[in-house]
Amino acid sequence: MPQPARLTALPAPVRDPFAARWPLASTVSDRERGPLPHGSPGAVLRRAAEVLGEPRVPLTGVGEPAALDLIAGLLDEHGIDLSHPHAAAHLQPPVLQVAVDADALASASNASLDTYDSGPATLAIEQWVVRALASLAGFGPRADGVLTPGGSISNLLAVLIARDSAAAAAGLDVRRNGLQGFERPVVFCSELAHFSVQRACAALGLGEHAAITIPSDENFRMRVDVLSEELAKPGRTPVAVIATAGTTDFGSIDLIAPIAELAREYGVWLHVDAAYGFGALFSDRLAPLLADVPLADSVTLDLHKIGWQPAATSVLLVADRNRFAAFGRSVDYLNPADDIDSGLDGLLGRSLQTTRRPDAVKVATTLTAYGRAGLGSMLDTCHELAQAAAARIVADSNLELLAPVTLTTVVFRFAAQGASDELQGEVRRRLLTSGRVLIGRTRLPGGRGIALKLTLLNPNATATDIEDLLDQVVATGLDVLTGEGAA
Amino acid sequence: MPQPARLTALPAPVRDPFAARWPLASTVSDRERGPLPHGSPGAVLRRAAEVLGEPRVPLTGVGEPAALDLIAGLLDEHGIDLSHPHAAAHLQPPVLQVAVDADALASASNASLDTYDSGPATLAIEQWVVRALASLAGFGPRADGVLTPGGSISNLLAVLIARDSAAAAAGLDVRRNGLQGFERPVVFCSELAHFSVQRACAALGLGEHAAITIPSDENFRMRVDVLSEELAKPGRTPVAVIATAGTTDFGSIDLIAPIAELAREYGVWLHVDAAYGFGALFSDRLAPLLADVPLADSVTLDLHKIGWQPAATSVLLVADRNRFAAFGRSVDYLNPADDIDSGLDGLLGRSLQTTRRPDAVKVATTLTAYGRAGLGSMLDTCHELAQAAAARIVADSNLELLAPVTLTTVVFRFAAQGASDELQGEVRRRLLTSGRVLIGRTRLPGGRGIALKLTLLNPNATATDIEDLLDQVVATGLDVLTGEGAA
Repeated sequence: MPQPARLTALPAPVRDPFAARWPLASTVSDRERGPLPHGSPGAVLRRAAEVLGEPRVPLTGVGEPAALDLIAGLLDEHGIDLSHPHAAAHLQPPVLQVAVDADALASASNASLDTYDSGPATLAIEQWVVRALASLAGFGPRADGVLTPGGSISNLLAVLIARDSAAAAAGLDVRRNGLQGFERPVVFCSELAHFSVQRACAALGLGEHAAITIPSDENFRMRVDVLSEELAKPGRTPVAVIATAGTTDFGSIDLIAPIAELAREYGVWLHVDAAYGFGALFSDRLAPLLADVPLADSVTLDLHKIGWQPAATSVLLVADRNRFAAFGRSVDYLNPADDIDSGLDGLLGRSLQTTRRPDAVKVATTLTAYGRAGLGSMLDTCHELAQAAAARIVADSNLELLAPVTLTTVVFRFAAQGASDELQGEVRRRLLTSGRVLIGRTRLPGGRGIALKLTLLNPNATATDIEDLLDQVVATGLDVLTGEGAA
Repeated sequence: MPQPARLTALPAPVRDPFAARWPLASTVSDRERGPLPHGSPGAVLRRAAEVLGEPRVPLTGVGEPAALDLIAGLLDEHGIDLSHPHAAAHLQPPVLQVAVDADALASASNASLDTYDSGPATLAIEQWVVRALASLAGFGPRADGVLTPGGSISNLLAVLIARDSAAAAAGLDVRRNGLQGFERPVVFCSELAHFSVQRACAALGLGEHAAITIPSDENFRMRVDVLSEELAKPGRTPVAVIATAGTTDFGSIDLIAPIAELAREYGVWLHVDAAYGFGALFSDRLAPLLADVPLADSVTLDLHKIGWQPAATSVLLVADRNRFAAFGRSVDYLNPADDIDSGLDGLLGRSLQTTRRPDAVKVATTLTAYGRAGLGSMLDTCHELAQAAAARIVADSNLELLAPVTLTTVVFRFAAQGASDELQGEVRRRLLTSGRVLIGRTRLPGGRGIALKLTLLNPNATATDIEDLLDQVVATGLDVLTGEGAA
């Protein structure tokens, strides 16, 4: 057994030396390395597994400093560096150091949000965060919300509330009696909606086929005319319409106002998945894109996307707090009636979790530290980078821009003569295993092939960084095309 | 907009000055204060809300140091101090400082577990943790697992896998087509099983009534004879039997071997909810209680209970990794087939989450730092405290012990002449609002009334601390009984 001597120094996360401007965290010290370790995935994971050794809980420990060194070393050598300006794959941003510091306070307190006596201060902090965000979204005083472990879970909770609400309208008590007798429940969303909608339908017992996917228009938005036709079809029980404000792959924003009008006409729950797009509300320039969000019954937003928070910092907002009744529970050991009468309540009735980590601590700290103007400025910088990348792509005969820039996503392909679909994937993999450049990929709707994708969420990256990144994409594409420098 | 100057010093979590032995974290600096702030819940939450001010995202920020001061001050003044020896209410332990330090590294990296290129090192770390824990549990090489945001979600995933597996055996594809046609699915568990079982049934579309609760015996364990009768009843489709290894309120452990035999006989999935009890495997003395866990098809364990990790650090283990197929997904932007063929896989197919925080970082660090012996010693200390508390209660004519001590829970009541059920709740509330003592409560099965409860998870607490705590319970009970010192 180790002598549990006090640590005298925290192995502080390495701070980003690129950061002329925004203090972002990183756990990678070699700033020349690139966003990923060099090597094939198999080789990198094998090396990391070797450092960890046989997967057994050791009988005796090595003590805290040695253990922290081991794990910090693994993250340093074999981990991702999201603060690197060439990390541009996913909606997974580098994080603000202040959010990391605040998150450590949340860990140290180990408060939970289910009851008053599992942590009073953090209850107040979560309520403040939820109300501040609801107000930013334009919701009124009846709005409420809850922090969740991710956008997929926020979407699941929204579909769950909508399901039970639609069933209740049909005279069914799903919570007690299950789905038996609920006639063909369906959910409508764009073909570009996040796959967590299908996952939620599967988990909630509706089945993936309950998700009716509506084709998208030339701007990658749900076709409202088709939604209207689908809603009019008989023999189904519509549970929810899900609009996306910031599709995962294109950043496109569905036309919320006409969709809301249809949802109201048919008496269907409107959920807006703004996991990606919500942060546009921080920016004066981009906020008008989200102006119609208050027409929704519920909204998913992820501050671990635009918000620069460590995961997970998702929020489900609901326009009317009474909708949370679906999760209400009276539990003898947590919230018995006589305790509630004495004011001893918590937030157990907001989610499917019992113990719930106070992720709101980092959000409250970040919003207070930076304000809307600070976060808005970070987003504007990323948006400008995306526009610059798009301009550069348009100007390059070896590249083709495939979608307009709405938020911070740029979808394109390597388009030199002879560049196939397969080649796009190969270019990405070759860049990725080089460790120098990390970009994303997706598939265009309508069978229009494979695309490459930049998701630009690093406000310390410069136009020159993005130029260099695209130069490497082109050079690698030409290499693959000519069969040179195979991985 | 603030000048985002680099922080030169992290507002380090206050370290526990009581800690003669184990370095636990705390965010409360006033060590005389008691585990909770003084005052009624309403007053405390009002004061905290006043410090936060109007719930609006401010236009301009105050900068990182001021924001961290504000939030750290809130946690200090109005937060919980789980490292206080009189914090003994819930399965919410004080946390090891080394786990907090490692968790900060996880936040700083912002790696996610869904794909290789969202963080290679943390993929290797999670796989190591899952295999090490599966091995500790006694599972073979086919076992696998996943970290989840809490025991309630682990239980939900287990019931989901069992549901889809039972439906498949009945020729139904629930994932695609939903629950239509699935004849009266039911889940069996003890009346003392965690309420997340009912919550899972409601969420998954089975309905709370699908949870058939089996009465418990005099030792608070599921009655196997009644389970046998219930399993024999016709007209139902058994989805799962859920045994509890460490009930939330009594720490009692169901008789896993005969339950497993019944489950096998009827071909039903056996899930063991060892959220509380799994940590017994760290202790030579207590490990035999969990010896039959390898008979299960799946196991929930929470290292944010016995394990002293910040929430959430739950794990769902499955005996056969193929059972995760229920969550498999191929997504164009994350894991397209040609990437998988090139070794570019992740852990997307293990859960309902997409972005998933690397909670395994703190677990790997803690297991390496302390080993089984270190954590076992912490647990043995807590177990001894519980036994000492039970002995003290038995010896006190004003107190009555209501359940045997199995793990670290002590269930009792204030039993002076004239002490009613209502009085138990009043005693707890009065102690809680005094801020000096935080104990739990529950309800005995079979209508046998309200009980008080100690959950002893602080290995730095001493027998004297617990003596003092019980003295205060008795003094407060007598005060309430004589109408003195009303809150």
